[in-house]
Amino acid sequence: MLDFAIIQGRGFHNVVEGGRVTGFRFQLRNPNYRGVAASLLDGIDVVVDGERIPDHVPLWTLQGRTLTLDELRASTDVRWQLDETATITVPKPGGLTPGVHELEVVVHLRRSYFPPLIARTPFTATGKGVIVPAAPEGGLRFGVSTYSYTGDLHTTMTLEDVVADIADMGATGIEILGEGNIPGYPSPDPAWVDAWHRLLDTHGITPTNYGSWVDTTLWRDRDLTAEEGADRLRSDLRTAHRLGFTSVRPKFGVTSWQLDPHPIWQEAVERSLDLAAELDVVICPEIHAPTPIRHPVTQGYLDFIERTGSKHFKLLIDTGIFQTAPVLGDYAEEIDPADGDEVPEHLRALAVPMADLVEVLPHVHFIQAKFFDIDDRLNDLHVPWGEIVPTLRQAGWSGWLSSEYEGRREPYRGRDQVRRQHALLRTLAAGR
Amino acid sequence: MLDFAIIQGRGFHNVVEGGRVTGFRFQLRNPNYRGVAASLLDGIDVVVDGERIPDHVPLWTLQGRTLTLDELRASTDVRWQLDETATITVPKPGGLTPGVHELEVVVHLRRSYFPPLIARTPFTATGKGVIVPAAPEGGLRFGVSTYSYTGDLHTTMTLEDVVADIADMGATGIEILGEGNIPGYPSPDPAWVDAWHRLLDTHGITPTNYGSWVDTTLWRDRDLTAEEGADRLRSDLRTAHRLGFTSVRPKFGVTSWQLDPHPIWQEAVERSLDLAAELDVVICPEIHAPTPIRHPVTQGYLDFIERTGSKHFKLLIDTGIFQTAPVLGDYAEEIDPADGDEVPEHLRALAVPMADLVEVLPHVHFIQAKFFDIDDRLNDLHVPWGEIVPTLRQAGWSGWLSSEYEGRREPYRGRDQVRRQHALLRTLAAGR
Repeated sequence: MLDFAIIQGRGFHNVVEGGRVTGFRFQLRNPNYRGVAASLLDGIDVVVDGERIPDHVPLWTLQGRTLTLDELRASTDVRWQLDETATITVPKPGGLTPGVHELEVVVHLRRSYFPPLIARTPFTATGKGVIVPAAPEGGLRFGVSTYSYTGDLHTTMTLEDVVADIADMGATGIEILGEGNIPGYPSPDPAWVDAWHRLLDTHGITPTNYGSWVDTTLWRDRDLTAEEGADRLRSDLRTAHRLGFTSVRPKFGVTSWQLDPHPIWQEAVERSLDLAAELDVVICPEIHAPTPIRHPVTQGYLDFIERTGSKHFKLLIDTGIFQTAPVLGDYAEEIDPADGDEVPEHLRALAVPMADLVEVLPHVHFIQAKFFDIDDRLNDLHVPWGEIVPTLRQAGWSGWLSSEYEGRREPYRGRDQVRRQHALLRTLAAGR
Repeated sequence: MLDFAIIQGRGFHNVVEGGRVTGFRFQLRNPNYRGVAASLLDGIDVVVDGERIPDHVPLWTLQGRTLTLDELRASTDVRWQLDETATITVPKPGGLTPGVHELEVVVHLRRSYFPPLIARTPFTATGKGVIVPAAPEGGLRFGVSTYSYTGDLHTTMTLEDVVADIADMGATGIEILGEGNIPGYPSPDPAWVDAWHRLLDTHGITPTNYGSWVDTTLWRDRDLTAEEGADRLRSDLRTAHRLGFTSVRPKFGVTSWQLDPHPIWQEAVERSLDLAAELDVVICPEIHAPTPIRHPVTQGYLDFIERTGSKHFKLLIDTGIFQTAPVLGDYAEEIDPADGDEVPEHLRALAVPMADLVEVLPHVHFIQAKFFDIDDRLNDLHVPWGEIVPTLRQAGWSGWLSSEYEGRREPYRGRDQVRRQHALLRTLAAGR
C-alpha cells in the first residue's frame, strides 16, 4: 500500500554516485484522482528545510526510467499511474544530514479539461522525512519489531509493506509476534512459510526474535498445567524455527501486582529446553517494567540459568526499564503532574542504572528497544539512549537492538518514529 | 485491508431470519496488538443509539463459526486473528431503521500477563454505521464510481476492497476511471483482466461506465489532431469493452472559460462511432457544471445525435448541475458568504430546473450521482435528491445512478458517505 500522504515515508535517502553524496531523493504518490501520461507533468518545486529548488531542476523517475523535465514533456510511453510512486531526485552536493527534514513540494500538471489560463494546476504537499544513516560496524545489529506497526498492519500496511519499510531504513532484522503476524497461527500454510522466506530474502532481512504467549488463564475456571504450558512453548519453538527465528520470548501469565510469573514457568521451560537446544533457538524471558533487573523475578531467571546450565535460556531486556520519565500526556495517559496529578506506580519511571545492565549483560541475548516519542531533533524524552548505547558498546555486547515503538497509535506514526529511532541509535553507535 | 477504526464500515446490516428481521450485526477488527484464542474473550457490551445490550447477549462469529459467550469461553480451536474480523450479532426484533446509527462497544478480554485484578481488560470503540435498505424494484439501478474512493484506493483499500465495499451496501454496478484504476493502462495484463472478471462475478457487480480522457494538450507545443483523439477514444472503447463496460465517457480538453470542448471532439467521436456500434458501447459526453443543460455545448451534443442518428452517442448527466447551494466551507473552499466573501462564478450553484432534465431524458444514458456531504439525518445540503429521484421515476427513466462522492478526502470518509447516499436514494426511489 502507499502512504495516504503524498510525500511517502519510504524512499527518502541521500544519493551516492561514484562514492560521493550528490543529492537526495524521495517518493510521491500521484496527487491527482487519475493516472496521467508523463508528458502532462510540468515540473516540481521542492523546498527542503526552507531551501527552494526550482521546478525544472529535479529529476523524475517513473516506471523505472529517470527523466529530466524536458524529457518528461517529450515522453510518449511513460505514465504516472495511481498505484505507482514517482521518485524525485534533487541535486545537492553533500546531501542531507541524518535526522528529520521538512519537505514541501508543488507538482505541476497540465489538465486539458481546465480552462486554458488555469490548466497548469499546482498540487501542493508538505511533510517531514527522516534520513537514516547506515548502520556502523560493530556488534550492535539494528532490527525492528512488527509491534511498532500495531494498528497499521492490515489497515494501511501489508506484512510485505512492513518488511519493505524495515529494509528501506537500512535495518536488517525483523522481530514478530507469533500470535499476531502469522496467518493461520498456530499452523501456517506451507505456501505462506515459503512466501515468508522469499520475502525476507528479497529484502535481505534476518528473522530475530519471535514473541509468544503462555496464557495461563486460557480457561476461566482453571489454570494451565505445566505440561500444557510446555506444549504451547514447544509449538511456538517449532513455528519460530520453521520461520528462521533464533529466539522465542514466551510471555507467561502473572499472579501478582509485581508481575511474578505463574509458577508453571520453570517446569514448562525446563520441559522445552531439549527441543530449544535441538532447534538452536534461545528461550528469552522478558525483563519489562515494572520489574527491574535487581528483583526476585529477574534473579529467578538467573538462578534458572545457573541451575540448568542451559545455553538456550537467556534474558531479553525491554528498554522501558531504563525510562527516566514516565509516559504521560499525549503519549499514553491523561495524567499531568503539572496539574498536581500523582503518577500511578505502574507508570513511574524505573530508571534502572547502567551498572545493573552491565552486570547481567553476559546473560542478555536480545534487546527490545522500547520507546514512545522521538522529536524532530531526535531527542527521546523518556529513554536515555545516550547512556544505553555507549554502555553496550563499552561492554562489547553483540546482538540485536530491535525497535519497539509503543507511543500513540494514529496511522503512520509508528513507522516514522522507528526511522527517527534508527537515526538516533546508529548515530550514537557510531560514537558521533 | 481492514478499516483502522475498530468498528468496520462494511458488514453493518439487519439480520433476516425466516423472513423476519431479528436483529443487526456489525464487524470489528481485533482491538488488541496480538491475535488471541477465543476462550480469552469475555463478552462484548454494545450500545446502539443509546440502547445498551449487556455483554453476554451478542453472538460472536469467528472463523466462520457463530458462538454464544459460553461457547466462546469453552472453545478450544477458534481464534480472533489480527487480520480477521469478528462479526457481532445483536438480537433486536425489527432491527434498525435505514440510515446512520451510533455504535459503542466494549470488548472484554482476559489478559493473563496483567495482574489478576485487572486482567479482564476492556477495549472501548465508538463509531457510526449506515444501514442501507435494499434497492427497490424499478428502472433505477444503483452503482458506485471508484472516484468516490479517491485517496483511499491504494492507501487504505485495494481494488478488491472497493468492489467488496460496493457489494456490501447492496449496490450492483461499478463505474471506473480507465486511466486511474487499471494497472498497466493502457494495456492491462490478460491475467489482470481475468482477475477483474472473477472479482466482479464473485460479488455480483456489473461494469457500468468507463471514464476516459482525450488530453488535447498532451504535448506542450501543439494540440492533438482529430485522428490522434479518435485513436485514444477507440483504444479506451476496446479496453472498456474487454472489461465488460457498456459506456465510455470521454473527457475532451476545453478551449474556454465556458468549457467549450476542443473542436476535434466531433471528428474524433464520429471516427469512433462504427467501433462503438460494433462493440455496443455508448459514448457519453458529460454534462458537468458550469455547463447546464440549456447551453450551446449541450445543444452541440444533441445536434450531433440528430445529425448522425447514432444510438451509440448519448448524454451523461453529472448531478452537480442541479446543486442548489455552492460547496464551500469545510467541503472544498475557504470561502464563507457569511463573512461577506463573494462566491466565485465557477462555484455558484447552477440549480438546473427539473423541466430541463425531463426534456433531455430520452437522450440520457447514465447519471453520475455527484454529491459532497450527507449528514447524520441523510440530508444533502447541496443536491436536491428529493426532486431528482421523483423526476426520474415519473419520467420512467431506466438506467444507472452511480455515486460520485466529491467531498473532503480524508481517509474513510468517501465510503461512509456513499453508504449514506445509497440509503437516501433508495428510500426516495421506493417512494417513501
